[in-house]
Amino acid sequence: MDIKTIIRKKRKSGELTRDEIRYFVGKLTKGEISEAQAAAVLSYIAMNGLTEDEILNLSTAMAESGDMIDLSDISDNIVDKHATGGVGDKATILLMPILASLGIPVAKISNRGYGISGGTIDKLESIPGFKTDLSISEFKNNLKNIGVCIMNQGLNFAPAEGKIYKLRNEIACENSLPIVAASLMSLKIATGSNKIVFDITCGKGTYISDKEEARRLSKLLIKLGKCLGKEVACVITNMNQPIGYSIGHNLEIKETIMALKGVIAEDLGDVVEALGSTMIALATNNNDLNANAKMIKEAIKSGKAYEKFKQMVEMQHGDISFIENPELFEKSSRTIPVLSTDKGIVESIDADMIGSLAIYLGAGRMKEEGKINRTAGITINKKVGDNVNVGETLAYIYTDDNSKVSGTAQNLKDAFKITTKKLTNKSKVLEIIK
Amino acid sequence: MDIKTIIRKKRKSGELTRDEIRYFVGKLTKGEISEAQAAAVLSYIAMNGLTEDEILNLSTAMAESGDMIDLSDISDNIVDKHATGGVGDKATILLMPILASLGIPVAKISNRGYGISGGTIDKLESIPGFKTDLSISEFKNNLKNIGVCIMNQGLNFAPAEGKIYKLRNEIACENSLPIVAASLMSLKIATGSNKIVFDITCGKGTYISDKEEARRLSKLLIKLGKCLGKEVACVITNMNQPIGYSIGHNLEIKETIMALKGVIAEDLGDVVEALGSTMIALATNNNDLNANAKMIKEAIKSGKAYEKFKQMVEMQHGDISFIENPELFEKSSRTIPVLSTDKGIVESIDADMIGSLAIYLGAGRMKEEGKINRTAGITINKKVGDNVNVGETLAYIYTDDNSKVSGTAQNLKDAFKITTKKLTNKSKVLEIIK
Repeated sequence: MDIKTIIRKKRKSGELTRDEIRYFVGKLTKGEISEAQAAAVLSYIAMNGLTEDEILNLSTAMAESGDMIDLSDISDNIVDKHATGGVGDKATILLMPILASLGIPVAKISNRGYGISGGTIDKLESIPGFKTDLSISEFKNNLKNIGVCIMNQGLNFAPAEGKIYKLRNEIACENSLPIVAASLMSLKIATGSNKIVFDITCGKGTYISDKEEARRLSKLLIKLGKCLGKEVACVITNMNQPIGYSIGHNLEIKETIMALKGVIAEDLGDVVEALGSTMIALATNNNDLNANAKMIKEAIKSGKAYEKFKQMVEMQHGDISFIENPELFEKSSRTIPVLSTDKGIVESIDADMIGSLAIYLGAGRMKEEGKINRTAGITINKKVGDNVNVGETLAYIYTDDNSKVSGTAQNLKDAFKITTKKLTNKSKVLEIIK
Repeated sequence: MDIKTIIRKKRKSGELTRDEIRYFVGKLTKGEISEAQAAAVLSYIAMNGLTEDEILNLSTAMAESGDMIDLSDISDNIVDKHATGGVGDKATILLMPILASLGIPVAKISNRGYGISGGTIDKLESIPGFKTDLSISEFKNNLKNIGVCIMNQGLNFAPAEGKIYKLRNEIACENSLPIVAASLMSLKIATGSNKIVFDITCGKGTYISDKEEARRLSKLLIKLGKCLGKEVACVITNMNQPIGYSIGHNLEIKETIMALKGVIAEDLGDVVEALGSTMIALATNNNDLNANAKMIKEAIKSGKAYEKFKQMVEMQHGDISFIENPELFEKSSRTIPVLSTDKGIVESIDADMIGSLAIYLGAGRMKEEGKINRTAGITINKKVGDNVNVGETLAYIYTDDNSKVSGTAQNLKDAFKITTKKLTNKSKVLEIIK
């Protein structure tokens, strides 16, 4: 077997055997084929697609390229939630303590941010002391003790997926459904999740162009899940604006704390309820999503979710004085308002642009090894559906770097699309597919 | 403009603009895009093809990625000959002095060997002292003085072509006609050739699978030549056996010297006549190929070609005592005959296998920086069409390494296809297309 034969076969749209896929993934993991050769395989997949068998074999091979966790000794009802990428997304951090406070264990293995989608691991590490580089036994112990834990995927889980993820972005095939589906499933196989809710974000700032594409991916994931003995549900969400009020690490953690105390942006609340109620449905077989959503509201209102969050932070060595007093989080030296020059209703906010501006300000990385500025970022003052007048503040820029202000301000203003017509639909959650 | 947009466009079979192609080639030359990104572009080209305009723009951009030579101050009748790759090919080295002895200047810019096709530069450098790393002015001076010179393409000419050539092999799209055609034309643009005869080798051991494919490439090259104001002709040759008697550096130079003295393998003679007569036709507008072939025979018979070769070697600092006494060339310590176990007629000799065995023995490189063993190689004792009896010698192995003998011997024997039927056609030259 050799890689050139595999490349030629995929160019001719041939179906790769299990052994050929394992050979490709194995050699890629060990660095025994070049990135150019892997790029050729991925390019032909992006053009010619993969059969379901190929996707299953690719998922499994990527999963088996690193460590594998078995969580069955803890519970069969552990639910995982995974978003395909969003700007300003703090739903995962909110859902972990909410679900755990309802007695539903949440085991989350997540990644650092790369590109415009911030990373949950990066965001949580903004809490001084918060540790995510855990051993598997530490991870499982936390899960047993308090029903919730998050750890860093790092290099241990599905390292082949990490390599393919990087290449996928580099060679612009991040939107190839079979590759995306295989990547997502490989992580879920490696991290032992049997019940998974995927948040499929579509529109600007995501790699899923529209609702139809999101539906196709959802159905594919559900089908793959069935073949692998996993219960999968998908919530399709609209990236018509960044999620919630803030983009940037310290800013987002502060927003999360406020949300757990009941002050929550409408769109973030909608996403959390849709995802959370679906997670509860998978874990408990209680399929009344409205009833489940009420449980989520109650978990916040009662303060139980907030308490669980503090417990989680403490268990992972984070300084809970920062949770109790969010003003302790370091702030940027400057906060600059960006004013509207139009009057009307906010129709959309270009999440792709906002994510790129956040990176420009330092609140994200374009390279794996890039550094993050934790105080930099953007807050949204006018959300989709809000009325706005000339001179009103659309958003705020947070930075220590004066030279970045004027460029950011102009683009930030342009990211807001203001209309004089009435909005027909501003909903964030488009569909739930089970 | 950015590389990802170009990758996406080519995936969708879009036609790249001149600027997009120049951007891609420029960034590749400077190393400002990754090999994975270049591999993606090439993969989509291999699948979706290129329009003629794209090939022309790609050729020109690759040519302009390095130095360019203008030979118009020397002559408008300088002919270039370029083979797409053969095993045991010494036709170029023979044709240079033959044509020059007939008053037709030959300016050759060539490359080192890579893969199973040996490099003309490597072969000539087996003559002690022979220098091919010349400056452009040295090259042109030799051409003016004696009508013939060869220099190393190295990194100066069309460096982008060098990078694409390497990737093309790595990602198994070496047989993509638009890429091959653009590569070939880029070298001819950079090196100032206006009249070019391409030797298109097809069959085993080449990247052109059959005569039909060779015809398509020939017609494409002739058409591109017209657009670029260059006269192009193509000779399609059959790689049904290695060319001539020997494969390996010192062995091939010795065979070349013998050929210039009139002792020449039939197939090598046929190829030299077909290519040479076509080159004369381009240079002189004398289109009677038979008459031209006679001139070639006469150039050898009269000793003029041999004398011109010595002159060329001397001008390029080679030691002509080695030409006058080929026994001075170093020999391998062992010469092992490989005997036939069959009786019949040699139907074909697998050039791909012979080329690979020569590399295994050390007479070639699979990596750019690989070292060459100049004494190692193979000689063919029974050529296609020859009768062979059980126990007769098919070929000889030349090596200093005992451990390589038995593996080579078995495969070498298997490379010979022996038939009991009469051969219908053993001709090496399949077609001349002008």
